Amino acid sequence: MAEERTITLAHGGGGRQSRELVVEHFLNLGKKTDPRDLDDAAVLEAPAGRLAFTTDSFVVTPRFFPGGNIGKLAVFGTVNDLAAMGARPVALSVGLVIEEGLAASEVARVAEAVAQACAEAGVAVVTGDTKVVERGAADGLFINTSGIGAVHPKARLSGRNARPGDVVIVSGPVGDHGIAIMAARNELAGLSGLSSDSAPLTELAFALLDAAGEAVHVLRDPTRGGLAAALNEIALQAEVAIALDEDAIPVSEATRGACELLGLDPLYLACEGRLVACVAQRAAERALEALRALALGAQARAIGEVLEGPAGLVSLRTALGVERVLDMPSGEHLPRIC
Amino acid sequence: MAEERTITLAHGGGGRQSRELVVEHFLNLGKKTDPRDLDDAAVLEAPAGRLAFTTDSFVVTPRFFPGGNIGKLAVFGTVNDLAAMGARPVALSVGLVIEEGLAASEVARVAEAVAQACAEAGVAVVTGDTKVVERGAADGLFINTSGIGAVHPKARLSGRNARPGDVVIVSGPVGDHGIAIMAARNELAGLSGLSSDSAPLTELAFALLDAAGEAVHVLRDPTRGGLAAALNEIALQAEVAIALDEDAIPVSEATRGACELLGLDPLYLACEGRLVACVAQRAAERALEALRALALGAQARAIGEVLEGPAGLVSLRTALGVERVLDMPSGEHLPRIC
Repeated sequence: MAEERTITLAHGGGGRQSRELVVEHFLNLGKKTDPRDLDDAAVLEAPAGRLAFTTDSFVVTPRFFPGGNIGKLAVFGTVNDLAAMGARPVALSVGLVIEEGLAASEVARVAEAVAQACAEAGVAVVTGDTKVVERGAADGLFINTSGIGAVHPKARLSGRNARPGDVVIVSGPVGDHGIAIMAARNELAGLSGLSSDSAPLTELAFALLDAAGEAVHVLRDPTRGGLAAALNEIALQAEVAIALDEDAIPVSEATRGACELLGLDPLYLACEGRLVACVAQRAAERALEALRALALGAQARAIGEVLEGPAGLVSLRTALGVERVLDMPSGEHLPRIC
Repeated sequence: MAEERTITLAHGGGGRQSRELVVEHFLNLGKKTDPRDLDDAAVLEAPAGRLAFTTDSFVVTPRFFPGGNIGKLAVFGTVNDLAAMGARPVALSVGLVIEEGLAASEVARVAEAVAQACAEAGVAVVTGDTKVVERGAADGLFINTSGIGAVHPKARLSGRNARPGDVVIVSGPVGDHGIAIMAARNELAGLSGLSSDSAPLTELAFALLDAAGEAVHVLRDPTRGGLAAALNEIALQAEVAIALDEDAIPVSEATRGACELLGLDPLYLACEGRLVACVAQRAAERALEALRALALGAQARAIGEVLEGPAGLVSLRTALGVERVLDMPSGEHLPRIC
C-alpha cells in the first residue's frame, strides 16, 4: 500500500509546496480557477449600500459528525453571522492552521466540504491563507472564515433594538447541533436520530426582512451557549427583560430524549441553523408566516416577549406555571462545539 | 504573590467569561467602545469604487521579538496584503485561537500590540471572535486577521501584469524580519543590531500609484520565502523572466553579517515591511523618487528587469558577473516566521 501523503511544514513555507496546497485544494472553492490569478488580496466591485463584515474561527472536534463537518460549519457560521445583521454573503476568506503530519486527504476532504457548503450558501471563497505548525502545536486543523455581505436595505438590526412588546420568534427546534457533537464525541451509539442543524440562514433572514422590514428589531443565530446565551446578550444590550414560555420552545424528540438522558438543558446547547428574532407585535404574524413558508422555517414559533425590565433578565415560565431565571451560561458547557 | 489569571475553556464558551474577554481586551481596538454594540457582524458604509479583501493567520514564535510582535505582524501583514493590491485598509477583523492556561496578561499584551499597530496603520478592528482550545491543542495563541480595503482608482495591479521591460524595484533592505526571528528564537546573543522591518506599506503603495498610476504593474510584499518567492510567483503568474543585479539589492550590514555567519541567503528571508514593484520603464524614475520621499522608502532601489523569457525563470547576476538561477524556495527554510 502506498504511504499516505501528509502535510509537512513545507506546505506552510510560502514556497513551492505551499503554493501547490492552495492551488490543489482551495482555488476551486471560488470563481478563481486559474492559479495565475493568485494575488495578495481579492479585488471586488463594492456592492451598493451598506456592508457587513464578520469573522469566526472553527476548532470543532470531531471534524466530521452527523449532519455536518468543520467545513460546513465554517462556511455557514460566517454566512449566519452576516444573516443576523440582515446581509447576504458576497465573498468569504478561508484561513487554515494545519498541524504537521495531518493526512493530505483530510485537508482535501475539508476543502470539499467547504466547496459544497459554499455552493449551498451561494457564496465563493475569494482569498485564503495556509499556515502549518509543527506536530503538537495545533490539534489537526483550525479554520477561520471571514465574510463580507451586502445589507438588506430595510435592515435596521442590532441586539440594542429589542423593545418592550416585541415578540420573540425562533425559526425551528433548538439544541440539535450541540447534542449531535456531544453524541459524536462520546460515541453514544444508543442515541439515534441526532443530527446537527447546520444550515445557511440567509433566505430566512431575507424572507423576514422582506415581510416585516424595520419591524424586525433583532436577529441572532444562537450558537455557543445556545438560545439562553443569545437572549441574555440581547437583554443586556437592549436593557430589557425577556419572558419565555417553555412549552412554546420547539425541541426535537431525539434531542429532548438525549438531553434527559445526559442531564443537559437544550436551551443552552448550540444551534448552527436557527434564527432568533425580536419583531414588533404588529408584524409578528407576518414574520411567522414568512418563516414558515420556507422549509428551514417550517417549525417557526413565537416563544416569548420582550418586557421593560428588570434590565438583563431572561425568565422562563415552565409547563407547571413556575417562573425561573434563564441565566447567561457561566463556564464551558461543551468546549470546541464549533 | 497573587496567582496569575489564566485563560480557561470558559473564555471560549460564548457565555459570560467569553464576553468579558472580548469586552475587556478587544473592543477598544476599534471605534466601538460600548459593549452594548456587540452584534454578530459589523455594518459599514461601503467605500466608493472597488474593494480589496484578504486574510492571513499568524503563528509566529516567539510572539515578541526585536522590532515586532505577533499583534503588530497580524495588523501590518493584512494591511500589507491590501497595500499590494493598491488598497487602503477600511476595517479589520481579529480571530483568536487561544490555548487553555495561557496567562491572561499575555492576551492583554497582544491586544495592546494590536491596538498600537492599528493606530499606526490608521485602521480599526470592527469585529472579532475568540476560541479557546484545551491545553496542548494549540501553541499559546494564534491570530487571524482579515481586512477590507478601498482600492486606489488608478490601481490595475496583479502578478499577471508584469511586462518585459518593466523595472523591478524594492523599497528597502530585504531579509530583516526573517533574521530577527531566527536570532530571537535561537537566542543568538552575539548577533546585535537585528530588528524586524515590520511596518505598514499603505503610504508607499499610494505614493507609487499617485506618482506612476497604471504604469505600476505589480506590487507585492515579500513575506514567507522572501524576495526570491515573491519574484518567482510573479514570473510564473505573468509567464516572464526576471533578471536581478545582486549588487543592487539592498541588504543591511547586520542582516548580511548574520546571514554569512549562519549560512543563510537574505533573498529567501521574509520581509514584513518591504514592497516589491514592477513598473514600466518610462515611469521607473518617478516611482523611485516617490518611494524615496518617504522615510520607509529612503533606501528604495531598482534591482533588475522583467524579460520576455524563459517564462518563470528568475536569475541573478552576481558581483563576479556569474548568472545563477534564483529558484522558488522548496521546503521550509524557517517555520512559523509570521
